Order: sequence, then structure tokens, then C-alpha cells
Amino acid sequence: MSAEAEITHMLDAWAASVRAHDLEGAVSGRSAEIVMFDVPEPLQAKGIDAYRDTWTLYFGDAGSRRFELLETHIVAGPDVAWVRALLRCTTDDAPAGRLTMGLRRVDGRWIVEHEHHSFPVPLTSSG
Amino acid sequence: MSAEAEITHMLDAWAASVRAHDLEGAVSGRSAEIVMFDVPEPLQAKGIDAYRDTWTLYFGDAGSRRFELLETHIVAGPDVAWVRALLRCTTDDAPAGRLTMGLRRVDGRWIVEHEHHSFPVPLTSSG
Repeated sequence: MSAEAEITHMLDAWAASVRAHDLEGAVSGRSAEIVMFDVPEPLQAKGIDAYRDTWTLYFGDAGSRRFELLETHIVAGPDVAWVRALLRCTTDDAPAGRLTMGLRRVDGRWIVEHEHHSFPVPLTSSG
Repeated sequence: MSAEAEITHMLDAWAASVRAHDLEGAVSGRSAEIVMFDVPEPLQAKGIDAYRDTWTLYFGDAGSRRFELLETHIVAGPDVAWVRALLRCTTDDAPAGRLTMGLRRVDGRWIVEHEHHSFPVPLTSSG
């Protein structure tokens, strides 16, 4: 299987876990030292326990039942990869969120070491 | 020079260009097909012209004169790399923003193909 296929498979299983509110599936394949830049505060969540807490919080959001990646773009070398995607993660059909991931291949398995989730700020409310 | 040293050098020059409001320096080393997830809308800015516009907009922000990367973490293979960092990008001393980059080495040069900039949403204003 190509690196892209392996990562696609991981992403599909992960998004399905989020939709099912399966916490163990959502945190599976993450590094113990993962650094998460999540939509809400804090500025960064460091380590798997803090990462897990971000999902417990997020499962309280109605959009989490729709969690779906769109326009997924994977760039992979032999041992390092990154992913960008849009997220359908609200009760609307339109994608509203953005996701970037940093991965490393460890002992033949792609491990997520970093995630960055965000919503854009409406221009009218900035500055 | 190691990949990490090459990327560190690029990041230092880039942040200095942003602080100086040097638009050509800020867009240098970016892919023609870069996809930018910026702090304000739109959801994504695709291509170098749209990317350039995000900087023109941002240079109107007082924090842009402080644009500084902190806790920069680089993971690089031979031809693919990603970066995460915190951003000092307001008139306060504390880092307030987050940055993730996806890179690819093309003809011996590291090119930024993706950037994701965000601020966390205060917990009190979500949900």
C-alpha cells in the first residue's frame, strides 16, 4: 500500500471514530507527545492526555456527529507526511473548519504528532 | 546544511520580511499552488495571488510588526517536511497565534505548499 493509501485509510477510520464518539478510536494512532492546536482554547494542548480532553469536550458539539474530511490533500515522503483538509463539522452541509496534520512513520506505522483545527474569523468581527 | 537548518533559515528570513512589511519577502519560497488557511475568512485562499492578498490585509494589523515564531518544531524527511510554531503576533508579549506549515523540497529548495494560521476561540464564546 502506498503512503497516501495508508494515511487515507487512517483518516477514514479516525473520522468515523469521531462521528461515533468512540474516544479510543479518536485518540488511536496519536503520539504520546502530540501537540494539538484546537478550535477552542487553550493555545496548545500538549501530550495525549490533553489531546484526549479536547475530544471529550468536542463530543458535546452537535457538529461532531457530521465530522467529515473534504478536499483531503496528502503529501508523504518515506517517513514524514502532512495532510490538509476542510472539515464538515457543523450541522450545515458546507465545510466550515480546516485541519492540518503532521505525521511521522514509526516502526512502519504512520503516527500523528501534530493537529491544527480552526474556523476562520468573520472579517467583519476582526480589526 | 541539514534540512532543519535550511528550514530554520527560511523561517527566520520570512518572519523578518513580515515584520518589515516586505511583501515580496513574505511570499518568497511559496508554491504557485499554495493553500492558505488564514486567521480571517475566506475558509481557504488558493494560489499565490490569493496568498499574497492575505499578507496585504494582515499588514494593516498592528501585531504584524511583532511577527515572531516561538517553540518552533520542524520534522523533516529528505523531501517532505512540516513545521509547527506559536506566534507572537499581537502587541502583547505572550504568543497568541498558532502556525502549521507543510513543505516539499523541489530542485533542492524547500517550498511552502501550505500554511495554517489561527487563534484559539475563547471557551466562553463557544457552544
